[in-house]
Amino acid sequence: MKTIKDSVHDHIQVDGVARALLDTPEVQRLRRIAQLGTVSLVYPSANHTRFEHSLGVYHLACEALEQLGVEGKQAERVHAAAILHDVGHGPFSHNLESLTHRRTGRYHDDVGRLLADGQVGDVLREHDLEPEVVAGLVAGEGRFGQLVSGELDVDRMDYLVRDAHHTGVPYGTIDHGRLVRELTFTDDELVLDEGNVQAAESLLVARALMNPTVYSHSVARISKAMLRRAAERLLEAPTAGIDAETLQRMDDYDLTVALRNCEATSAFSRRLDHRDLFKRAVWAEIDDVPGGIIEADHESIREFEREIADRVSVDPAHVILDVPSRPSMTESTTRVLVNGEMRRLGEQSPLVEALRAAQYSQWRLGVYSPAELRDRVGRAAVDVLGLDIDGALVTEVRDGLETTLDEFVD
Amino acid sequence: MKTIKDSVHDHIQVDGVARALLDTPEVQRLRRIAQLGTVSLVYPSANHTRFEHSLGVYHLACEALEQLGVEGKQAERVHAAAILHDVGHGPFSHNLESLTHRRTGRYHDDVGRLLADGQVGDVLREHDLEPEVVAGLVAGEGRFGQLVSGELDVDRMDYLVRDAHHTGVPYGTIDHGRLVRELTFTDDELVLDEGNVQAAESLLVARALMNPTVYSHSVARISKAMLRRAAERLLEAPTAGIDAETLQRMDDYDLTVALRNCEATSAFSRRLDHRDLFKRAVWAEIDDVPGGIIEADHESIREFEREIADRVSVDPAHVILDVPSRPSMTESTTRVLVNGEMRRLGEQSPLVEALRAAQYSQWRLGVYSPAELRDRVGRAAVDVLGLDIDGALVTEVRDGLETTLDEFVD
Amino acid sequence: MKTIKDSVHDHIQVDGVARALLDTPEVQRLRRIAQLGTVSLVYPSANHTRFEHSLGVYHLACEALEQLGVEGKQAERVHAAAILHDVGHGPFSHNLESLTHRRTGRYHDDVGRLLADGQVGDVLREHDLEPEVVAGLVAGEGRFGQLVSGELDVDRMDYLVRDAHHTGVPYGTIDHGRLVRELTFTDDELVLDEGNVQAAESLLVARALMNPTVYSHSVARISKAMLRRAAERLLEAPTAGIDAETLQRMDDYDLTVALRNCEATSAFSRRLDHRDLFKRAVWAEIDDVPGGIIEADHESIREFEREIADRVSVDPAHVILDVPSRPSMTESTTRVLVNGEMRRLGEQSPLVEALRAAQYSQWRLGVYSPAELRDRVGRAAVDVLGLDIDGALVTEVRDGLETTLDEFVD
Amino acid sequence: MKTIKDSVHDHIQVDGVARALLDTPEVQRLRRIAQLGTVSLVYPSANHTRFEHSLGVYHLACEALEQLGVEGKQAERVHAAAILHDVGHGPFSHNLESLTHRRTGRYHDDVGRLLADGQVGDVLREHDLEPEVVAGLVAGEGRFGQLVSGELDVDRMDYLVRDAHHTGVPYGTIDHGRLVRELTFTDDELVLDEGNVQAAESLLVARALMNPTVYSHSVARISKAMLRRAAERLLEAPTAGIDAETLQRMDDYDLTVALRNCEATSAFSRRLDHRDLFKRAVWAEIDDVPGGIIEADHESIREFEREIADRVSVDPAHVILDVPSRPSMTESTTRVLVNGEMRRLGEQSPLVEALRAAQYSQWRLGVYSPAELRDRVGRAAVDVLGLDIDGALVTEVRDGLETTLDEFVD
Repeated sequence: MKTIKDSVHDHIQVDGVARALLDTPEVQRLRRIAQLGTVSLVYPSANHTRFEHSLGVYHLACEALEQLGVEGKQAERVHAAAILHDVGHGPFSHNLESLTHRRTGRYHDDVGRLLADGQVGDVLREHDLEPEVVAGLVAGEGRFGQLVSGELDVDRMDYLVRDAHHTGVPYGTIDHGRLVRELTFTDDELVLDEGNVQAAESLLVARALMNPTVYSHSVARISKAMLRRAAERLLEAPTAGIDAETLQRMDDYDLTVALRNCEATSAFSRRLDHRDLFKRAVWAEIDDVPGGIIEADHESIREFEREIADRVSVDPAHVILDVPSRPSMTESTTRVLVNGEMRRLGEQSPLVEALRAAQYSQWRLGVYSPAELRDRVGRAAVDVLGLDIDGALVTEVRDGLETTLDEFVD
Repeated sequence: MKTIKDSVHDHIQVDGVARALLDTPEVQRLRRIAQLGTVSLVYPSANHTRFEHSLGVYHLACEALEQLGVEGKQAERVHAAAILHDVGHGPFSHNLESLTHRRTGRYHDDVGRLLADGQVGDVLREHDLEPEVVAGLVAGEGRFGQLVSGELDVDRMDYLVRDAHHTGVPYGTIDHGRLVRELTFTDDELVLDEGNVQAAESLLVARALMNPTVYSHSVARISKAMLRRAAERLLEAPTAGIDAETLQRMDDYDLTVALRNCEATSAFSRRLDHRDLFKRAVWAEIDDVPGGIIEADHESIREFEREIADRVSVDPAHVILDVPSRPSMTESTTRVLVNGEMRRLGEQSPLVEALRAAQYSQWRLGVYSPAELRDRVGRAAVDVLGLDIDGALVTEVRDGLETTLDEFVD
Repeated sequence: MKTIKDSVHDHIQVDGVARALLDTPEVQRLRRIAQLGTVSLVYPSANHTRFEHSLGVYHLACEALEQLGVEGKQAERVHAAAILHDVGHGPFSHNLESLTHRRTGRYHDDVGRLLADGQVGDVLREHDLEPEVVAGLVAGEGRFGQLVSGELDVDRMDYLVRDAHHTGVPYGTIDHGRLVRELTFTDDELVLDEGNVQAAESLLVARALMNPTVYSHSVARISKAMLRRAAERLLEAPTAGIDAETLQRMDDYDLTVALRNCEATSAFSRRLDHRDLFKRAVWAEIDDVPGGIIEADHESIREFEREIADRVSVDPAHVILDVPSRPSMTESTTRVLVNGEMRRLGEQSPLVEALRAAQYSQWRLGVYSPAELRDRVGRAAVDVLGLDIDGALVTEVRDGLETTLDEFVD
Repeated sequence: MKTIKDSVHDHIQVDGVARALLDTPEVQRLRRIAQLGTVSLVYPSANHTRFEHSLGVYHLACEALEQLGVEGKQAERVHAAAILHDVGHGPFSHNLESLTHRRTGRYHDDVGRLLADGQVGDVLREHDLEPEVVAGLVAGEGRFGQLVSGELDVDRMDYLVRDAHHTGVPYGTIDHGRLVRELTFTDDELVLDEGNVQAAESLLVARALMNPTVYSHSVARISKAMLRRAAERLLEAPTAGIDAETLQRMDDYDLTVALRNCEATSAFSRRLDHRDLFKRAVWAEIDDVPGGIIEADHESIREFEREIADRVSVDPAHVILDVPSRPSMTESTTRVLVNGEMRRLGEQSPLVEALRAAQYSQWRLGVYSPAELRDRVGRAAVDVLGLDIDGALVTEVRDGLETTLDEFVD
């Protein structure tokens, strides 16, 4: 039994397959992947890694399994899945997901290969566990997959608390001890036991408040978009000789240095290193954006960027169009027992609909460019994208927001 | 300059009129008034007092005033109001409010007298402050009254964080540091500055989650109703010789011992001391309760209780009807600046309407009685009150809830 | 299984005999005994109770037993002892110990009776546990008694962390999670496993720093001495009709009100209620106090007080002589494994000797009186007690200290 | 005024020269220097950076200056020194200090150049501050230099609390709020005001407990020694083309990737990346080591390593001799006011001598090698270094310790 000290859960006891997996290069690599990518440019203390998060998820999984009375091989499978659930992440976690997945195919096929091959596969087989079953759990399949990846998974319970702890933002503090203790199964569905509607709501609310304040903070979005743009150019640079699969296996250190060394990306890299970021030229609400833009695929977006850049004769590298996908809220399907009956939280709680509306109202399309170009780029973007706002308004809204931002970066 | 250590705000520096007020008997008495009354029967750590809360409110008021650039006599007035804002509370804080105010007249007249008379009045006058102006601030009057008692007051900011700290429930953790820093005045209205919609929402959400989990937890409500009933009997006992005004000036120690010593209340007192509480015989949603019952005045409620007791021939002291007032949500009028314009949070945030609906759905009428009587009392109460549910259902709902409660008291 | 929320250990699960014991009047009474007595007059947040502490001790005992692989009846005995270990405390915890024990005989005989009689005895017997065995564990007897009351007991681990949490003083933060996990038995002796010298030292250091800052803070000592004096007068007042045994069974509420109502004690009571405390007239280091004074028994101390009062013609009630016993340091016998060998911490760690010396240097004899009398009383006390310092020096030392005290009450 | 959220101090307000300095590449680089270097291989949550620490030091400096009544240009100088005090650190903070300083000359000359040149120099001059004066403060010169680098500096206050927060080890929790508030000047010496002997001791104790548990944890020492060895080989590799000055300006990312890419260091790099570390072959107490070895210079140590390797015919890269310098304890000269007189803590507190003795008893010479070589290397090392212990004993001690270590990594 090995005991590891964690800043969130205090002592985490690691044993069996989990302990053996910790020593594989694939899991050790997670020490060098920042949990929140570029969010540390907004919250300087947010330097925690996927490694400590994976330990935390494993810890909560152990507590949940104990509560559910699950032991033996089935428990070991979930332990392995908890430790391994993020092993497929590329550098800077979610920041480059869309980029690498677009080029390497589905994330879960990739995880399947990672779990079957290399030292991870060896360890799993030595402990008599089937890599494909563990990969299925990571993908949320089956009765116990819900615990690793589902509406009530321990992944979310850990990251909300951990991200709150490390950013210093209080909104993620949920009662994970209670949530884990109140899990139960009804007809193979993971549900929260009687009397926990508030506890379920608090999970939802935590994510709804952390989202605009941390995960989608405008400065985090800008720097993430810049990083994604730089990585894209790296993949396209003939001299770099890096393909999507290689990129996906890098850690934050490899990628940072590769961006510094490649001529096509060194300017972006310098800006990221010195926190000399692009500024918002456009920041538009969902109702002011044509549906076609929201649904546009990657190629169309690149095309729009080039068109905006052409219009005002600037380098296309200096125009970034950042279009988030439509808001969704998976927690609305969380199941709770109410008077002996299983209900979806969305049916039970008026909060769900309100949080969905809040999310909708917080959605923003962004166009980013160097500070000195933003007026020109902003006007061109409104025009090219057919945004339903006139140039002056954009400037005003934008300035208002930028001012706030500079004065209260949290 | 005196520095006092606080478990929530760490070091609190006290000076001038605030320091002098701390030494008065009226403020020292707050050391013996539990902040949350009978909530400690649910959360055993919730033993904090009105004294430490008053210090916390003073501390946040100082920070807010510094941020607003307010100094001199005006600041001293607010300091005094912050320290004194709860000085009028009777024993067990809000638990007996309805009882004593019904009998002594308006709370704020009472505070006015307390601030003008005795050592508090002396201290205020020595510092050249007008008791009636300070009392006005406590009542929320004027530009700075909003800071002491209003939608964005420092009272709420302190109690949410403090109650969360002492109960161990994480839902009250708001970013008070940010809220206080972002206060500003627009046309004499206290508002949150640009970019703080989330911060305002978080304040709202914190109260909405703390409410059912802490403040209106069913066991807290039952014990509070029992305490209120006991106090009522004490006032009515000819031998006790205690009137409402005397009661209002007692501390928790006086009242506890008075209830033990009076024959008419000693049984209640023993139950409270031993946590041998009444149980819920009825727990009905707002839609199942006739409007007339919800609006009933104190006398009618006593009448209903007697009628229920008569119906099943039990001692009327063993039937308590607990009807909360209709839900309200004052924070919906919190003002925030959005793009330079002052807006009410209720207009801006879809959460407000949802939280109002949640509050409505959490409202419950309760009928409480000793465990062995609850089936009979429950059936009689449904009948007498004309509740729109049949007896069997009441029993089932009630049992479901009681089970949950006994197994997870938080 | 009942889950209780605690502000220190978060969720505490209570079952079996422990759960049944919680519902007895004897244990519920601990809700109304302040853990730190008059310390709340120095640290206003320190209002936690013996009840929550007892829950915490039970929680740590469960963790330790699990780690030691102890189950069944033996574990139940320790659970009961943990919940009950403070059930014999009188009002204001340790504050009146010397007084009541002097008059009622040994504490542990008393606990023996409490555990055999009343509802506690019934519950123990219903669970097939022998009251006298559980009382033995409370007294630290036998292999498992060390866990409840010994150098490495869970009592100390809980109170250090809990008192730090509630006062806001950071010095008590020990790594209780680690200490509990590293306990083991060697030849029936409870020891800390290999590699834990620092962990053992940290426990020692925590107590050494908490002592002068919290437990023996001069204002806490003064108010405790005043409370003890008041209680003594209450016992002696013919009209009050309260004997030592009755006093010992009171809670803080009973005693507070009894002191208010008795003519002989109401002046003391008013001073305590209003925090209008005596001041130090003498504050003397151990080397300046004749050995005879340090060893003096209770009667001689009362005699000295009367002599001092006579000398300057003041009411003897206005002179309190407070002589702590000689410093001791039980933790020095804590056993740790070092390279497979069991050693006493006092042999292994140079810190132990140093902390003993620090304790010695912090020892102070105090003489307290109303502020306006302290010069006269101080001079008389130096004379009567034969202290090796002249009157002027006393005044200077005392003033220096009082100034500091008034300016930094923590 | 910019407000930055910090996980330790909550909100930090940055203004004036400090705000401008934050935007320089030299300060932004500190975001990519881990505060504790390889300690994260022991405590996985310890990923905090020199950047957030520098913000924290600035924050405490502001509080101290406000308390001391220092404003204007003098305050701005200290603000700049606080933000810049770690700007000269090489990659992995203190881990490579001895290496780079040996090769580049004194640290403080280097800081002098950094502050005079580049954007930092520009910002200082724009704010009318003299780079050489600010560099003097960083070096601890003058009245205010004591605040930045001295026995009572805010650097230590921040790092103890921050390192405790991020490792999860509770021993560093000092009362920094009190320490900063109690600073004062007496004859140009920074001292702690009257009544703060315990507060001064707590600072000392915190460092004494954090040292063996965190800073000098054996796994942290082994990985640090491996990193130092790798960096040394990188400097010597003709193909790498990296000199000491270049190395000193790298960040953790640059160095990590450089070690991966250089043939001479890639094996070390792989071991560090996979946490496949050397083990202790020797772990000897100070009394068992000849004085000549403790005083040996770098060249002699390399010579000993080669001799040990030769003796058992292993690659010299596989033998690391790690000799810490003799223990020292600078805090012993901390000055406190006691009864109006300035005293050194070492004279006043018996703890100082004890902590010095504890430090002495914790000192260890280590010889590290791959696990499979450690028996042979251990025996050879005892022989070559003339250690006063026989081979068997070494093995036993070592095994005992390694077992502990593997089972409780904190």
